[in-house]
Amino acid sequence: MAKPFRVGLAGVGTVGGALARLLQRRREDLTARAGRDIAIVAVSALSRSECGPGLEQAAFYNDATALAATADIDVFVEAIGGADGPAYAAARAALSRGLPMVTSNKAMIAAHGLELAALAESNGAALAFEAAVGGGIPVIKTLREGLAGNEVRRVSGILNGTCNYILSRMESDGLSFDACLAAAQKLGYAEANPTFDIGGFDTAHKIAILASLAFGTRIDADAVSIEGIESITLADLAAADELGYRIKLLGVAERTAKGVEQRVHPTMVAKSEPLAQTMGVLNAVSIDGDAIGALTLVGPGAGGDATASAVAADICDIARGHVGLAFGRPVAALVEAERVPMQRHEGGYYVRMSVVDRPGSVAVIAKRMGERSISLEAIMQKRSDVGAPASEFVPVVLITKATTEASIREALDLAVADGVVREKPQVIRIERA
Amino acid sequence: MAKPFRVGLAGVGTVGGALARLLQRRREDLTARAGRDIAIVAVSALSRSECGPGLEQAAFYNDATALAATADIDVFVEAIGGADGPAYAAARAALSRGLPMVTSNKAMIAAHGLELAALAESNGAALAFEAAVGGGIPVIKTLREGLAGNEVRRVSGILNGTCNYILSRMESDGLSFDACLAAAQKLGYAEANPTFDIGGFDTAHKIAILASLAFGTRIDADAVSIEGIESITLADLAAADELGYRIKLLGVAERTAKGVEQRVHPTMVAKSEPLAQTMGVLNAVSIDGDAIGALTLVGPGAGGDATASAVAADICDIARGHVGLAFGRPVAALVEAERVPMQRHEGGYYVRMSVVDRPGSVAVIAKRMGERSISLEAIMQKRSDVGAPASEFVPVVLITKATTEASIREALDLAVADGVVREKPQVIRIERA
Repeated sequence: MAKPFRVGLAGVGTVGGALARLLQRRREDLTARAGRDIAIVAVSALSRSECGPGLEQAAFYNDATALAATADIDVFVEAIGGADGPAYAAARAALSRGLPMVTSNKAMIAAHGLELAALAESNGAALAFEAAVGGGIPVIKTLREGLAGNEVRRVSGILNGTCNYILSRMESDGLSFDACLAAAQKLGYAEANPTFDIGGFDTAHKIAILASLAFGTRIDADAVSIEGIESITLADLAAADELGYRIKLLGVAERTAKGVEQRVHPTMVAKSEPLAQTMGVLNAVSIDGDAIGALTLVGPGAGGDATASAVAADICDIARGHVGLAFGRPVAALVEAERVPMQRHEGGYYVRMSVVDRPGSVAVIAKRMGERSISLEAIMQKRSDVGAPASEFVPVVLITKATTEASIREALDLAVADGVVREKPQVIRIERA
Repeated sequence: MAKPFRVGLAGVGTVGGALARLLQRRREDLTARAGRDIAIVAVSALSRSECGPGLEQAAFYNDATALAATADIDVFVEAIGGADGPAYAAARAALSRGLPMVTSNKAMIAAHGLELAALAESNGAALAFEAAVGGGIPVIKTLREGLAGNEVRRVSGILNGTCNYILSRMESDGLSFDACLAAAQKLGYAEANPTFDIGGFDTAHKIAILASLAFGTRIDADAVSIEGIESITLADLAAADELGYRIKLLGVAERTAKGVEQRVHPTMVAKSEPLAQTMGVLNAVSIDGDAIGALTLVGPGAGGDATASAVAADICDIARGHVGLAFGRPVAALVEAERVPMQRHEGGYYVRMSVVDRPGSVAVIAKRMGERSISLEAIMQKRSDVGAPASEFVPVVLITKATTEASIREALDLAVADGVVREKPQVIRIERA
């Protein structure tokens, strides 16, 4: 039997703790798989007392960079989090000395992934980050290896369980956004400060990473157009339902004739699509490739055990001597993608607006749409509820055929200026398979 | 740049032809991924004239074993098919000389996978067969690598697109089994002799392979209990719909306290499950693991391009020097699974039967169930359609709580012997997530 494969673990929180338990629990099988025992021999944390079961024997460091730079280990596992700070410093220290590294840190990979991958390449070390996107779902491996023969056209996914939980609860229980957010916080699905999740920023990190893997492009996290789910109302969900859609917060990376679109926004998804059927805290990713057609992966996007599953798979790959390229191609071969600003996005749109309740209002809107060659696919004007107080506005929902973001925004701005539509119509993009 | 990676391809039919086109189309990207050009330099077929575009330059062999044994190549790709015969002979020839090999041949892997894997191991060669199960879905890689840290409890899947197409069409269009089979044949989804697909034998090969990867057990294809979809009627689909289920032909491999169950049969799946939502020719696989919970992969299970996608991914892995173990663990570490005969299967059951239309009939059935401690969850007795000819039988549908296959079969046999139930009640197992 070969020498044990020695793991140095930085961070013993939810992910690090679950990883330590997993490596103990699955020790025998992992030894068979890797051809050698896999053991955590060094650990870093703020204090020794944080270290749970399975870590008693490990050498202790109170500094992750010291661990990464000096410990006698075969792989460095970073489970600290944060784009910069100790995680980033430790990652550089590990890769600089040719030490393979595994991380679950999406923020760091989105911000510094290319630099770290280049460092890994030049030092002949592996850099693996399956757990950074989609939790336990092996989406990185699927894009990097499983679909290596495909020209990928689009990756779209539900990449944030908090948002999907909130939207699912709003739909199933008819509760407001605020009530569902509070429920998510109570269940531990959402942070006390939920902006990073519900504002779409977490999803943006993840889609930027997937775009690079999918298209062979350099990560360009700043190019992601981001909208969160804060503005979604029960009225939108009801209208979506009636029209055969569900509303999901999607991250979408798409290769178009104009370049690569990267966007995060609430999206109308046809109920028949696998992404629409993904409810609660689950994540799901659909990948469209020229050979495969469409492939969808659905599974747990977060949680200690699921994330540890992904980290353990990366460790096992490295222990077997499988040192692939971090982004599937050499960093030098990754190309700069042409950014497509959101204004140039083409697609169908859902628009819900409050229209002045007088003859000709809808005609004015339709005229503004027509001027920009926007065709309507559906229009729904609802009577106010019987007994509801009379209002000078009535709700109108439009579904457009394919048009550009610029056109629909201009048409709506003009309709507002015409005085027939109240300000801030709700605009939700429609994603067609 | 390193020397080209030379592929020898045996078989230029649907899969081989699609692979040749894929390797040409994606040549530049695959070179970046593999660090070297990937080129088909030798090919075997019945005649040179069968070879399509991309194969003009390749050395020609009219014998696959000669190609595998003597050609100057870096990987042997088998796309002939069949458990034995030329495919098997060529596979042995390739692995015997330490040549890595890629195959899409589920029948051969189900029958000879362990022997071939052992041959590969002892000669230091890779044996990869992603395309053998689930077409383009990377389910082999997911079980072998992506979920390496999990104790897998169950793998269940829709693994035959022909059957799923037929059941989907029956449900959506209200057409008979025979009509939908004819439609599948017309569309090229079913063979002229469809027994291998609709009888469940194709699914059985695939679930036997997945069971081995999931549980670290030796392939035991003979242990798979097999029922096809020929007996499914529109009455079953209507009852399933009413009860909140869809009927799918599933392959299921499950680790139970008694051992490993391997079974293929029509199954009631709750409509909310991802497998139930997989319609038409798509395949889907759900994997339950202790760390991940549940992961589901949905995609194209057949077709030249999708299968070529999986073959190309295997070739690319090998070209990068990633020579993993064929079944994730060394063959010597795979254990013999305790077989669980179908009679000992525990689960819920759907039973549709023709019951003699006289007072007390249902009471007799209920008594027979009660004697075997079978609890009923639901019972539906339908009036015959108004205007239909009077009959001495009425249709009754039962749903049982968990019981054993032996118990339900005995209870029904006795009810038939009691003279209250017409022979051959329809029995369909219910799979709960």
